Amino acid sequence: MAEKKLPFSQAQLDEMLQKYPTPFHLYDEAAIRANVKRLLAAFSWAPAFKEYFAVKATPNPFLLKILKEEGLGADCSSAAELILAEKVGIIGENIMFSSNDTPAEEYAKAVELGAIINLDDISHIEYLEKHVGLPELLSFRYNPGSARAGNTIIGKPEDAKYGLTKEQLFEAYRIVRDKGVKRFGIHTMVISNELNPDYFIETARMMMTLVKEIYETLGIRIEMINFGGGIGVPYRPEDNQVDLEYVGAGIRKLYEEIIVPAGLAPLKLALECGRMIAGPYGYLVSKVLHKKETYKNYVGLDSCMANLMRPALYGSYHHITVVGKEQQPLDHVYDVTGSLCENNDKFAIDRALPQIDIGDIVVIHDAGAHGHAMGFNYNGKLRSAEILLKADGTTELIRRAETLEDYFATLDFSKL
Amino acid sequence: MAEKKLPFSQAQLDEMLQKYPTPFHLYDEAAIRANVKRLLAAFSWAPAFKEYFAVKATPNPFLLKILKEEGLGADCSSAAELILAEKVGIIGENIMFSSNDTPAEEYAKAVELGAIINLDDISHIEYLEKHVGLPELLSFRYNPGSARAGNTIIGKPEDAKYGLTKEQLFEAYRIVRDKGVKRFGIHTMVISNELNPDYFIETARMMMTLVKEIYETLGIRIEMINFGGGIGVPYRPEDNQVDLEYVGAGIRKLYEEIIVPAGLAPLKLALECGRMIAGPYGYLVSKVLHKKETYKNYVGLDSCMANLMRPALYGSYHHITVVGKEQQPLDHVYDVTGSLCENNDKFAIDRALPQIDIGDIVVIHDAGAHGHAMGFNYNGKLRSAEILLKADGTTELIRRAETLEDYFATLDFSKL
Repeated sequence: MAEKKLPFSQAQLDEMLQKYPTPFHLYDEAAIRANVKRLLAAFSWAPAFKEYFAVKATPNPFLLKILKEEGLGADCSSAAELILAEKVGIIGENIMFSSNDTPAEEYAKAVELGAIINLDDISHIEYLEKHVGLPELLSFRYNPGSARAGNTIIGKPEDAKYGLTKEQLFEAYRIVRDKGVKRFGIHTMVISNELNPDYFIETARMMMTLVKEIYETLGIRIEMINFGGGIGVPYRPEDNQVDLEYVGAGIRKLYEEIIVPAGLAPLKLALECGRMIAGPYGYLVSKVLHKKETYKNYVGLDSCMANLMRPALYGSYHHITVVGKEQQPLDHVYDVTGSLCENNDKFAIDRALPQIDIGDIVVIHDAGAHGHAMGFNYNGKLRSAEILLKADGTTELIRRAETLEDYFATLDFSKL
Repeated sequence: MAEKKLPFSQAQLDEMLQKYPTPFHLYDEAAIRANVKRLLAAFSWAPAFKEYFAVKATPNPFLLKILKEEGLGADCSSAAELILAEKVGIIGENIMFSSNDTPAEEYAKAVELGAIINLDDISHIEYLEKHVGLPELLSFRYNPGSARAGNTIIGKPEDAKYGLTKEQLFEAYRIVRDKGVKRFGIHTMVISNELNPDYFIETARMMMTLVKEIYETLGIRIEMINFGGGIGVPYRPEDNQVDLEYVGAGIRKLYEEIIVPAGLAPLKLALECGRMIAGPYGYLVSKVLHKKETYKNYVGLDSCMANLMRPALYGSYHHITVVGKEQQPLDHVYDVTGSLCENNDKFAIDRALPQIDIGDIVVIHDAGAHGHAMGFNYNGKLRSAEILLKADGTTELIRRAETLEDYFATLDFSKL
C-alpha cells in the first residue's frame, strides 16, 4: 500500500509550526493549479467548456482567487457563496446559481451579479418572475428519477429533493420561452464522490440525448449542459484517481455522435466539481495531545470533528500520516480521536499506524474539500485556521482561527 | 396519536412573528422550570443531590441563568462551556468538568474556577499534576466495558473512547491518594437518549457496588457519584417520558441497600442531564417557503439542518406541527426539507401532515437540546436566533441570529 505523500519538507513544516499553532488546514497551491489544468486539458477539445467550482466545498476567497486565475467559475447556492464569488471578481455568467428551496433575496442577489440562474423546480419560474423578474438566460435542473441509479453517497435520484421530472422540464422550457426567455441551459447532478469514470460518460449521454429531444420536440436550442460534479477523491491509498482524460474522450465521442449530427454544435459543456479540485490537496495538520490505553488504544489529537466532520459523520476513510515516521512499520493499531464530548469524534478506528508518541505531528489527508466548510461549534469547539502553501514554498494565512470572542459574538452578556 | 402541544397561543405567535423573523428557536421558560423541579423532587430524598446541566446541549447563558436559579450546576467539557458557566455565576463545585483528550489550558481554567475535575484517563493524573497541579478533590470517569451494554445512540462502552477500566480506576485512586488528594468522586456515562427507566437504576447499582468495593479494597471513601446523563426525550408522540419518580425511588432503594449498610452514607448523588432538561421545551419555528411536486411531495422551509441537524444526521424523528391546522386530518404525505445544498437536509421524510400551504408556520418540536448547539455554517447558512418565552408570556431575544458579517469574520478580504 503506497503511503500518501506530504506536500512539505520537515524544514517547511518546522517553519509552519513556528508561525501557526496546530491544528490548521493547509492547501497546496501548486498541486491545486496543476489539478485544475489537468481537468481543463481533458476538455480542451470542447468548443466551450467551463468548470464552475462548487464553493460549498471550500468557501475560501483566497482559494477562489487562485481558481479564477486558472479560468474557473463558481457554482454557488447561497447568498454567502455569491458574495464570496463577487469578492474575488467572479461575476456574470462565470457564476452558476444552483439553489433549492431558495428565498427571493438570494435570487435577487444572483440576478444582480448576472449569474446563470438554475431553477430547481417548475414552481420557481413564477416565484422568480414575481419577486425578481426573469433573466434572458435560464437553466433548469433535471432529476432523472429512476432512469438513473445514483450512488450510495447521493442516494437514488427519485428520492432526491432536487430538480424537475422530465415532463416538468419540457413544460418549463415551453413556459419560459413563452415568457420571453431567449437562452437556455440544462443541469443535473446525479452522483457524488464517484470514482468510476463511466458514470460521468453515461450522465453526458443522458443529457445530450435529452437536449436533442428538447430541440426536436420544442425547437428550443439548449446552449449549455452542466453535467454537475461528483468526481470522487481517491481517499484510500489503494484507490485510483478518476481518469479525466478517459472521461473527456468519452464525452467527446458522444458529442460527435449526438450533438454534432443534430446540428446543435457548438454547445457549451460545464462541470461543477468541488471535491476533486481541492479535496486531495488540503491537509489537516494536528498534534498528538494524549495517548490512552483502555479497551482499545487511543491517540488524542488537538483537533476534532469541528475541523473535519466526514469520518464521524459518514464513517469516511481519511488517510493519516505521522510526520517523520513514514518509513516505520504500521505495527500499532489506534483509534485516532478528537476532544469533542461525542463518542463518534474519531478520525480513524482500528487504524494500523506506526508507534505514535505525544507531540507527534499527524497529518490527515484529503481534507481540502468538505473539511473546514462543514465544521461546527458543538461543545464550544472553535474552527481552525486555513493556510495556503504557495508554489514558492512560502505560506500565507488565508483564514484566521476562530476565537472565543467569535464563539460568543451572537450573545449579549450585558443583558444577563 | 396525540398531537404535541404548542406553548403559545395564535396571538402570542403573531406577536412573535412581528418581532422576530423566522426561523428562530423558542424556549419555554415555565415548562423548563417545572421540568427541573420534577427532576429535583424525584431525588429530594437524597442527602445531597446535584444535577449538573450538560451545557453542550444548549449553551445559552440566559438558559443557564434560569437553571442556576432552580439550583442546577453545570457539566462542562470545554473552555467555552466553562466561561459560559462562569458568566452566570456557576462556579466552584457547582461545575463538573468532564472532558477527554483535554488540553492543559482547559484544565487550568477549570481549576481556576474551582470546578470538580473529572479525569477521563489514568495518564491525565500526571498531565494535570505537571501542567496545573492536583486539586484537593478529584473524580474519575469509569468505563465498564463489556460489563454494560450501552444503547444504540452511545454504542458499546468497550468501544467508547471515554473513561478508565476498573483496574485502572483502582490504581488511579491509589495514586492520587498517595499524591495527597483528599476527596474523591466517581462518574460514568454509559447511555444516551434512553427512555427505559431501569437502565438508570442499573447504572446506579453498578456505581454503588463499585464505590463499596473501592472503600473495602482501598479504604477510600468516595463522596460523590455522578451517574451521568442519558435520560431520553419522548420525541415521538407515542413515546412516554422517563418516569423520574420511579427512577428516583429505585435508586433510593439501592442507596438504602448498598450505601447505608456499608457505612458510606451520606453520599452525594449527581446527574448530568442536558437533553431531558431543555430538549422537549425548545421549538424551531419556521415558515413554508416553497412547495414542490416531483417524484415525491416536498415542503421547503426557511430553516435547514444548520438550525437542527438531528434528522439529517441521525435520521431522528422530530414531531412537526403546522400552526392553526392541528385539528385537520393528516391526509397528505410530505418530505419536509431545508434549503441546504445537501440531499439529506430533510426534517422529515414521508411524514403524514395536513395540507400545507406556502406561508404556513411550521413548528419542529423537541429542538431545545442538541439543536441550535449543533448548527454549522455549511453552504454559507447562518444560525438562527434564540428566543425565550417567559413565564409571563412576554419574549426576550437571548441570542441574535448570525449575520453574513459573522460568517465572514475570520476572513480578511483586504488581503485579496
